[in-house]
Amino acid sequence: MLLVDQSRLWDTHQQMGRIGALPQGGCCRLALSNEDKAGRDLFIRWCEDAGCTIRIDAAGNVFARRVGADDTLPAVATGSHLDTQPHGGLFDGIYGVLAGLEIFRTLDAAGIRTRASLETIVWTNEECTRFAPPTGGSMVFSGLLSTAALHAERTTEGTSVREDLERLGYLGEPMTYANHRLACFFEAHIEQGPILEKEVRTIGIVTGIQGARMFEVNVVGQDNHAGTTPMNMRKDALTGAARMATCLNDLAMTGDAALRLTIGRFEIVPNAPSTVPGTAMFQIDLRHPDQAVLDDVEARLRARLADIAAQAQLELSIRDICDVPPVAFNPGLIDLVQSKAAELGLSHMRMLSGAGHDAGNLAMVVPTTMIFVPCAGGISHNEAESATPADLAAGANVLMHAMLAKAGQV
Amino acid sequence: MLLVDQSRLWDTHQQMGRIGALPQGGCCRLALSNEDKAGRDLFIRWCEDAGCTIRIDAAGNVFARRVGADDTLPAVATGSHLDTQPHGGLFDGIYGVLAGLEIFRTLDAAGIRTRASLETIVWTNEECTRFAPPTGGSMVFSGLLSTAALHAERTTEGTSVREDLERLGYLGEPMTYANHRLACFFEAHIEQGPILEKEVRTIGIVTGIQGARMFEVNVVGQDNHAGTTPMNMRKDALTGAARMATCLNDLAMTGDAALRLTIGRFEIVPNAPSTVPGTAMFQIDLRHPDQAVLDDVEARLRARLADIAAQAQLELSIRDICDVPPVAFNPGLIDLVQSKAAELGLSHMRMLSGAGHDAGNLAMVVPTTMIFVPCAGGISHNEAESATPADLAAGANVLMHAMLAKAGQV
Repeated sequence: MLLVDQSRLWDTHQQMGRIGALPQGGCCRLALSNEDKAGRDLFIRWCEDAGCTIRIDAAGNVFARRVGADDTLPAVATGSHLDTQPHGGLFDGIYGVLAGLEIFRTLDAAGIRTRASLETIVWTNEECTRFAPPTGGSMVFSGLLSTAALHAERTTEGTSVREDLERLGYLGEPMTYANHRLACFFEAHIEQGPILEKEVRTIGIVTGIQGARMFEVNVVGQDNHAGTTPMNMRKDALTGAARMATCLNDLAMTGDAALRLTIGRFEIVPNAPSTVPGTAMFQIDLRHPDQAVLDDVEARLRARLADIAAQAQLELSIRDICDVPPVAFNPGLIDLVQSKAAELGLSHMRMLSGAGHDAGNLAMVVPTTMIFVPCAGGISHNEAESATPADLAAGANVLMHAMLAKAGQV
Repeated sequence: MLLVDQSRLWDTHQQMGRIGALPQGGCCRLALSNEDKAGRDLFIRWCEDAGCTIRIDAAGNVFARRVGADDTLPAVATGSHLDTQPHGGLFDGIYGVLAGLEIFRTLDAAGIRTRASLETIVWTNEECTRFAPPTGGSMVFSGLLSTAALHAERTTEGTSVREDLERLGYLGEPMTYANHRLACFFEAHIEQGPILEKEVRTIGIVTGIQGARMFEVNVVGQDNHAGTTPMNMRKDALTGAARMATCLNDLAMTGDAALRLTIGRFEIVPNAPSTVPGTAMFQIDLRHPDQAVLDDVEARLRARLADIAAQAQLELSIRDICDVPPVAFNPGLIDLVQSKAAELGLSHMRMLSGAGHDAGNLAMVVPTTMIFVPCAGGISHNEAESATPADLAAGANVLMHAMLAKAGQV
């Protein structure tokens, strides 16, 4: 059975990782920075060496096309992103791009010609570190964001995205799924979670992306002197907020294994050692693949917070920060990926993505799915991000055979 | 019955409040600042106008003495402090000093001569805003801190306390309770808590100062992705710390009305919206008048924190920040103050001080007690600090008659 070159795939990761390399082995290649341009340039050179044609769209997305026997057919596409977090690793996003490149090289070496063309796509600004929104490049392609809106976004340095694209030579013609047709889209990615490692499986067959809602909760009581204010005369925002956090965690721990509820930010004011805190703020990150469950949990959550606030004589306000609906990937593609994993003799399991991805946007307009491989300790967005050469190759092999099945061979 | 001049007492507060006045009606007169010197100078001028002799010691404490018929007797003393918090009010400390002055003026107007001399003392640096320790001036007088140690303390501007005392002209000869004998010490003060207001009493007869212990609790779990990490695979430091805070509050709410447990500082790391927090830190402020109760609560508190940490698979460490033992004031003086409040027809109650005061140091070496008057909403260390002219005068009347009873009249 045709297999990618594990060492070559690994080496490309190491070479790409030298652009924006960090002292502890990680990588900083912020979207539309000079490092991002250098990474894109290297990728394009590699693809041109592999005989690909290159197109760049108005969002700076890069489409590397391995032309098939019938180039009028919609392309079978894969890809991900080359930009990183400020203290990012070598694999988040990069793997999905370099797996596509490795497949082109493997097919070239084997002399295989596909019926439909293949594409490996680099989406602009998945990480949202220098400018908003996250996955902005794939949003534009999927018609979820206008090119003009993306161009008008300001970077942390004060330039516009359009200015950055022009400066870097990555401002192309407007393109969307409507005028650049794709038969389907696969995204290979490290899991960014601990499940595959814990379950000792190599391939995650991703059935969808969880819905995510974020709320900011503000609790207002009254500052008071810690020594002089009796316990029963306090309006202690910290105690109220802590009770809320405890209660929400208990609410999320009962039963439904797909539910995620996180309080990642938590702050009190004045945060002084001997003052009963009058104000507390925390943010809730709530995720589940099913809108109905999200609705139900949100309703219960709001009711419990209101109860606790009332009992503690605290003012409560809840602000909606975002509401990203769940994504269900294409059932046919999910089955295809599973059958290819099985044919390759790779342990696998179906799972949801907890994090958002470009594939979530593509899924709105094109049949889409994702392939996960394990990452050590589930650690990501961190220089310590790590994956094994064997697992990366395994995921690329599943991806290659799934793409071949969709594109056909001549 | 002899009574102080309510309007005059109020006016002196307003005049003193102009030195370091803040826009919202408060006052900033940090210890050994130019404003503090101006306040001290004004107080000394007022006392000299009232016929007092002035002595200044090596800690900068000011002793204004109204000489009695037998000046060889130990003086009957009162006083407090003129320094304020950066956003302080007009009454915290200042009242205890100006009440002493008002008593001198009232006795002068009535032509009353006491047998023992009377003193009104201004203690240096009660508030600990520019340099440590709090109540440093009365610590030196009470033999709890050496003059040399106080002089060596550095201010936030980098000068030494000795340099500041010299610069301001407030560096006198070393003096302690051993060579400057006091018969007793009374400190009048606003309550800085809500109890008198809630109980609708004018006079708080202060039986002691609570013991205070502070602990810093550090909880360490593991940072993880909020979307990808299942609830049962988390080591969530926020949830653990919130459960601890909730538990400690419940522990402090059961039964003993004198117990105070406050979590005034609470911080998590990395404090990012979509990251399960790996680290949490909080500080516990525990107060009670009885060491045995503090011992018992501390033991239970440590056991509960250890239980919660173990259940949540979190590392726990607890650092002792301070342990200030409780102070019991002199029973004879407490009874005397109560009888004078009753004779004056003033509503009163016995109570503990939740906050520390100079009187806590004096109590180690001289019979001591305190007299509290209400402050609006229990608010202090705040520009909004407020007390009524009538309550301030009532407290000064109780103080005056208690001092007269101890000093005797000729």
